[in-house]
Amino acid sequence: MNFNQTCAELRKAAETLAQRTGAQKNAALESAAQSLEASAEAILRANRADLRRARDGDMKDALLDRLALNEDRLAGAVRGVRVVIAQKDPVGTVEAGWRLPNGLEVRRVRVPLGVGAIIYESRPAVTVDAFALAYKSGNGILLRGSSAALESNRAIAAAITEGLARCPEGVPGAVRLLDSGDRSEVDAVLNARGLIDVVLPRGGPELINMVVNNARIPVIETGSGVCHLFVDQSADIAMAVAVAENGKLQRPGVCNALETLVVHRDALSSFLPALEERFAGRAELRCDEESFAVLQGRPRVVKAAQGDFGTEFLDTILAVKTVSGIDEAIGFINTHNTKHSDSIITRSVENARSFQQRIDSACVYVNASTRFTDGGEFGFGAELGISTQKLHVRGPMGLEALTTTKYLLEGDGQVR
Amino acid sequence: MNFNQTCAELRKAAETLAQRTGAQKNAALESAAQSLEASAEAILRANRADLRRARDGDMKDALLDRLALNEDRLAGAVRGVRVVIAQKDPVGTVEAGWRLPNGLEVRRVRVPLGVGAIIYESRPAVTVDAFALAYKSGNGILLRGSSAALESNRAIAAAITEGLARCPEGVPGAVRLLDSGDRSEVDAVLNARGLIDVVLPRGGPELINMVVNNARIPVIETGSGVCHLFVDQSADIAMAVAVAENGKLQRPGVCNALETLVVHRDALSSFLPALEERFAGRAELRCDEESFAVLQGRPRVVKAAQGDFGTEFLDTILAVKTVSGIDEAIGFINTHNTKHSDSIITRSVENARSFQQRIDSACVYVNASTRFTDGGEFGFGAELGISTQKLHVRGPMGLEALTTTKYLLEGDGQVR
Repeated sequence: MNFNQTCAELRKAAETLAQRTGAQKNAALESAAQSLEASAEAILRANRADLRRARDGDMKDALLDRLALNEDRLAGAVRGVRVVIAQKDPVGTVEAGWRLPNGLEVRRVRVPLGVGAIIYESRPAVTVDAFALAYKSGNGILLRGSSAALESNRAIAAAITEGLARCPEGVPGAVRLLDSGDRSEVDAVLNARGLIDVVLPRGGPELINMVVNNARIPVIETGSGVCHLFVDQSADIAMAVAVAENGKLQRPGVCNALETLVVHRDALSSFLPALEERFAGRAELRCDEESFAVLQGRPRVVKAAQGDFGTEFLDTILAVKTVSGIDEAIGFINTHNTKHSDSIITRSVENARSFQQRIDSACVYVNASTRFTDGGEFGFGAELGISTQKLHVRGPMGLEALTTTKYLLEGDGQVR
Repeated sequence: MNFNQTCAELRKAAETLAQRTGAQKNAALESAAQSLEASAEAILRANRADLRRARDGDMKDALLDRLALNEDRLAGAVRGVRVVIAQKDPVGTVEAGWRLPNGLEVRRVRVPLGVGAIIYESRPAVTVDAFALAYKSGNGILLRGSSAALESNRAIAAAITEGLARCPEGVPGAVRLLDSGDRSEVDAVLNARGLIDVVLPRGGPELINMVVNNARIPVIETGSGVCHLFVDQSADIAMAVAVAENGKLQRPGVCNALETLVVHRDALSSFLPALEERFAGRAELRCDEESFAVLQGRPRVVKAAQGDFGTEFLDTILAVKTVSGIDEAIGFINTHNTKHSDSIITRSVENARSFQQRIDSACVYVNASTRFTDGGEFGFGAELGISTQKLHVRGPMGLEALTTTKYLLEGDGQVR
């Protein structure tokens, strides 16, 4: 089918879905969840076909693992649908309202964006995820997964559509998979001005950059996280060690993990040896001159190269930078961070305030781990990613990120 | 000076400005306003030079008028600065806050976007306007006016910078004019990823499309307005006539003026003749077959061409479309509008509700003129334009449109 026609049909379905109540959307989501459960065998069979094809194409093990579904992973995705069902419907919220001097009543209400597109990499569970979030927030969604996961995504989309069709008030047309596997589909999405209201890339930095650089429609960017921890001279050293350990080791491969320690010169000799002992070889420390002098000779301590600052290692590696005070720390962090999450460990009210006011990040912490930057931890329920852009939505995204507002005005013949 | 260096300096100044209190920003704005008043002669002299150059280049009269400054217009722009001073500072507002189960305190606070750029056409007063709005909201601003207004803009920017420099807590570096007149500057702005946080085009559709199509940084689009009025079969005809007259004639050249009437078949014979009499030749009616049959023979009544629907005439021309009911009206409007403002005149609660829920526009009216879609009318004070996009901000924009939020989190050593 022609791309423009697909978009037109999706728009029509989205207009219908936008009028559904929360209860109607939940019933349809539950029907889709049950259909996914009933189709588990077909979905896993399709996934095995994808895996065979990928292995024949010499896909690397890590990527094969991301592509692979099994009963547990599929059940996890279906549980995700039920988490979305449990969430509050953002549509219809009256955000503000007032009466103009002439008697005209004004309300600003939350409404779906309309039609979204998601361009994502190999994990087929994202298909389920993206569908549920878009459907609950009342949006039509165009899914464009990787060609490696084509069979899996087809089977998943078929199960979802079937489930929606079985529910009397479901809107099966509101979810569409682009499954030609052709690169031109991606270009069509990125240029669909007036047809698609927003595109979300979900995957590695290459995918995100490709989308940002080529999209002529609005993008919500879930970027990388180069998170910093600044250990002030007044820091509680035991707290600093615990927060640094948590930031680096609890889950090194995620965007809110710690990548760079910034240490006040006066805290170097108390903090760094204690941290190195706590790490006990579980992480490599890439140190600037001054911090290296303190730790020299200890295992897994090396000199930092210039490029280590500002790098998202996504690994058990931590860069260490020495500074002379809060101003240098803030300057360094604002230069090297990705505007995601940064934290200060301090006992100084003044420095805590200065850090929070001047650090330019989605989340700025005092005396806590950056690992809390997460929709689940924030209490938002379903995870839509962490926005590192400033427009529209910043930081952990709930369903509201997929909505906009409109003004409703009611009068009795007012003119200017 | 090198463009990247200009942006780096602007960023530094913006970081300083972001920390200024509302009172400090107001003092600096007042100092800039006084400097503009004191420099009136130099500014008008520069403007006369621009006008001479424009006349030599055979600029059209309408454009010359837009380029021209005089004492009144300059005083109006300075009054605008004082309107901005009177407005509430959006920075620092706590939008939401809660405590996580582990004791971590979360606040979402409003902060400046950082550095904005505005690309605008010949009206030099926009230079004053854009500066005041950006400064009050704590943002650095890069101004790129048209080359026709180069001398005027230079004189205005110099007066502003001087005024800011004279105020002890002013940040003169937070406003920069790009004044090489070279087209490559525009390209540099549109590609300044990481250097400029948002770009606002301000001018005609060509300028806006150029920016939207070429920007690789976020855009706030203040698009055109193809506004519709639907006269339902239950409409109060006198009200419908008054609202249509106001929408079309009170100020035909603006984006919230009416462009298309959508009339229920059953209202044609009562509404259209009454409207035509009220217009008394002051507007042309471009009618579809059915409405033409009702008005045939009257002055300034012609048959509509297909392209008349969905056209922003910005003139005393009104297209007329006949429909058979609310569903057809909504479908027609959603297809032909620009998502700006649309209105229904009706006595039916059901149709009013349906119209407001299903019309996809920034502002949806019941029994009132679309002319109220305006920052001033809404009570927002200074006018930043009407956003026709859905992301970030929709409808009339106040200062808040130039801000974003960040999360501030405070704990006592929380880890995951």
